[in-house]
Amino acid sequence: MFKILDCTLRDGGYYTNWDFDKSLVHTYLSSLNNLPVDYIEVGYRSIPIKEYYGKYFYSPVYELQELKSLTNKKLVIIFNEKDIRVEHVADLLEPIIGIVDMVRIALDPQQLGRALKLAAEIKRFGFEVGFNVMYMSKWKQYGNFVEELSGLDGLADYFYMVDSYGGVFPDDVKQTMDLIRSKTDCKIGFHGHNNLELALINSLTAIDYGADIVDSTILGMGRGAGNLKTELLLSVLNTKYNMDIDFNAIGNVVEGFDQLLKKYEWGTNVPYMISGSNSLPQKDVMDWYTTRVYSLNSMVRALQNQKNNIKDNAQLPVFKPAKSYSTVLILGGGSNSVEHSKAIIEFINQTENIAVVHSSSKNASYYKDVQADQFYCLVGNEGHRLEKVFSDLGDFKGTCVFPPFPRKMGTYIPAQIHDSCFEFEQISFTDKFKESHSILALQTALELKAEDVYIAGFDGYQEASISQLERSLVEENEFLFQIFQETYAKDIVSLTPTRYKTLLSGSVYSLVC
Amino acid sequence: MFKILDCTLRDGGYYTNWDFDKSLVHTYLSSLNNLPVDYIEVGYRSIPIKEYYGKYFYSPVYELQELKSLTNKKLVIIFNEKDIRVEHVADLLEPIIGIVDMVRIALDPQQLGRALKLAAEIKRFGFEVGFNVMYMSKWKQYGNFVEELSGLDGLADYFYMVDSYGGVFPDDVKQTMDLIRSKTDCKIGFHGHNNLELALINSLTAIDYGADIVDSTILGMGRGAGNLKTELLLSVLNTKYNMDIDFNAIGNVVEGFDQLLKKYEWGTNVPYMISGSNSLPQKDVMDWYTTRVYSLNSMVRALQNQKNNIKDNAQLPVFKPAKSYSTVLILGGGSNSVEHSKAIIEFINQTENIAVVHSSSKNASYYKDVQADQFYCLVGNEGHRLEKVFSDLGDFKGTCVFPPFPRKMGTYIPAQIHDSCFEFEQISFTDKFKESHSILALQTALELKAEDVYIAGFDGYQEASISQLERSLVEENEFLFQIFQETYAKDIVSLTPTRYKTLLSGSVYSLVC
Repeated sequence: MFKILDCTLRDGGYYTNWDFDKSLVHTYLSSLNNLPVDYIEVGYRSIPIKEYYGKYFYSPVYELQELKSLTNKKLVIIFNEKDIRVEHVADLLEPIIGIVDMVRIALDPQQLGRALKLAAEIKRFGFEVGFNVMYMSKWKQYGNFVEELSGLDGLADYFYMVDSYGGVFPDDVKQTMDLIRSKTDCKIGFHGHNNLELALINSLTAIDYGADIVDSTILGMGRGAGNLKTELLLSVLNTKYNMDIDFNAIGNVVEGFDQLLKKYEWGTNVPYMISGSNSLPQKDVMDWYTTRVYSLNSMVRALQNQKNNIKDNAQLPVFKPAKSYSTVLILGGGSNSVEHSKAIIEFINQTENIAVVHSSSKNASYYKDVQADQFYCLVGNEGHRLEKVFSDLGDFKGTCVFPPFPRKMGTYIPAQIHDSCFEFEQISFTDKFKESHSILALQTALELKAEDVYIAGFDGYQEASISQLERSLVEENEFLFQIFQETYAKDIVSLTPTRYKTLLSGSVYSLVC
Repeated sequence: MFKILDCTLRDGGYYTNWDFDKSLVHTYLSSLNNLPVDYIEVGYRSIPIKEYYGKYFYSPVYELQELKSLTNKKLVIIFNEKDIRVEHVADLLEPIIGIVDMVRIALDPQQLGRALKLAAEIKRFGFEVGFNVMYMSKWKQYGNFVEELSGLDGLADYFYMVDSYGGVFPDDVKQTMDLIRSKTDCKIGFHGHNNLELALINSLTAIDYGADIVDSTILGMGRGAGNLKTELLLSVLNTKYNMDIDFNAIGNVVEGFDQLLKKYEWGTNVPYMISGSNSLPQKDVMDWYTTRVYSLNSMVRALQNQKNNIKDNAQLPVFKPAKSYSTVLILGGGSNSVEHSKAIIEFINQTENIAVVHSSSKNASYYKDVQADQFYCLVGNEGHRLEKVFSDLGDFKGTCVFPPFPRKMGTYIPAQIHDSCFEFEQISFTDKFKESHSILALQTALELKAEDVYIAGFDGYQEASISQLERSLVEENEFLFQIFQETYAKDIVSLTPTRYKTLLSGSVYSLVC
């Protein structure tokens, strides 16, 4: 009979910084006590790392003791092989002898040799040892690694195939198991990711093909597209393998983690599908998706660039405007730049030596007849939007600015405006971000040597209904406005109502006659 | 080469009543124009049905003409075999000749004979014909149906296996295809559901095994757990079959439907997994999940009852209280019944001949020392909550009331209180609902012959942050309060702050001294 290891806290910790609410952990353990799970992987044991990581990244002894008292399962912790050396082992493991049953090692297959030495040291303290070997879909490229597998015999209790990219298919699982079996007698495990919704069928295939253990997490909680869902695996085992399942226990634990799912929204989506089916790292996707506001299309393009090994698809002339402007008005995509467009257009027409900078092209069509010079910030997918907004770019008179080279999100340049496109040499007032609407607009204002900087249509969001993505955009913008104003001792005055706190409030109606 | 049919509007219509925003439909069609999809199934053509169903349930001619002008794909409509007879066909199909290319028939396999006659009539008007035969996982039980399959030859262009319950596995797909091929030469299609996240692998298996067509929908939009996701299928076809895919087109259409996903939240969950892996109809689950507020556990229990053919697991003595009370106070699970509990307890103690009815047991522990007679409404999973709230039910003195027999959500009775449990003979003031906290509480007030009915802890929800589930609960409660008050010409007075508009406002502080 195969075994099941639930690693919800360890893999879910990527979202929560490895801190989980105590009552949720209790619900988790008491529910799992009634379910046919054999091992619970709680988290990492780690040497100190600069940056805050929480409880289950370090898994202190008193915490493990408490968990031990609440569960009837075997407890597991994991080492990041890249950080842990043989000399760290005694300090990390001696205190948890008798509490934790198994220590796993997460490793790059190219470090198998080093990991074998680490495993020997772990074994010395009496723990079961599991090898979680990543990048399964690329193993065929690592010939040496396969030859070293015989070193596992007598040392590793489980050798895991980790489908890091979530891109393997059932046939790949079988082929890889054949490969492993030709080199070692070690028990085989499978850790699946769900980019292509194949985690279940791959895990069942592994089980049917004789695997000894599979990993899963509640609601699939885990980086990016997430893992095999424990509740799905158990539902199927109930009917397919006549395994007795307490669905009330499943109900309880799923309800507990459902709040976190609503908050962090892990699970697959188009960018994860693309990274999965092309064996591309999903770390970038996760960063783009959870902390920045990029359109799906920008992410798709960036991934396609990675796939095609295109760091960027065009190096453009550097933006060095010949002319300077005493006033720059930055227009955002908020509804206030439409609502008040009549007054804003009056303001533009009545102001001498003014340039208009479209941070987003969203509302640009309302301003297309304005006589002032206009600049368009084309981050990510914005070139497509420009084409949509101006159904005909034949007589386009504006200037388009792009982030500095190389651009992660790629470069889309509508064909008809190629001669009007420039990139920044650098972003001069912060290192923190390079590609966003606001940053391009502010950098443009700098390059145009504006004395007065106005902004309109940066409405902000209502606190009550703000999503996590919107919140991080607001935070990023507030940061940019502040650093810009501090660096250049220059106020940014908002001419329309705004919820941004770092902008100075003004009114377009006070400036027109 | 196999073909792809996208049926997002048809299958997604179950959520939107077959109405979709015009601009979304335009985005959908223009995106699909750039993707390797062959057929677009728009919706139903139907005879008039009492009840509102929208645009794509009837698919009027002018609408189909407009869609035709916007797409380069073949258009498809579908008939519900159970509603459409041979004599309806001319009226439904003559006007759309030359606009629509294929007519599909959704049918119960036991009606294959009747459907063959319908198909012959459809063919008379020159359409391609598809048979969408439901309940694939139960076909083995329909021996006769299989023998009739030869009737398809020369009549059906596609014969679809529809995995209605989302419970088949890749091997089942192959076996079923073998079965079909032994009886007919008709081209084979597969329509997968995603309860067990097997829609992709089942569809790929069908394709690899020679299927001629598969169905999918954007973001899997469709009843219950939903369908194979078009974007997932295409992502995989891109790498596995070297099919050229415009991911920007995918990005555009997915972004469009993402709003609807956030609103309707289709996709798999534990109840859908259980119904899928046990071939139980998911219609009930969808109703429970989208329109009523039942806990996951209640749904799981109800499904297990269905699976075990238990309509209900206990018939209880009918609730016929010997005593009547001049005042009944109904306590809800809102935070105001905790916040103001001191005053409420004073009110109870100072009022003669009062009964307390706990609509939810959530806050019941705050009232456990009150001397008045107390009643607990145990709908769905509430028995478990009662056990949680009172860690020891040994000296429980209350009376518990249950919905009338038979109960869809099952009956959980904590062992120690079995003698205190009763069920209602009927709900006497509405036929519309039978199982909810509020309905049990109001029925209890009736049975206790209350002259004055007070309520506390029914806080309602803040409009801004209300979820769809909460909104339907609020609407249901408002309806119940109103019908109760009208039927019995009796006010319900709320003693704590409430957002319910049908309750009369009072204050507990005005009633205690």
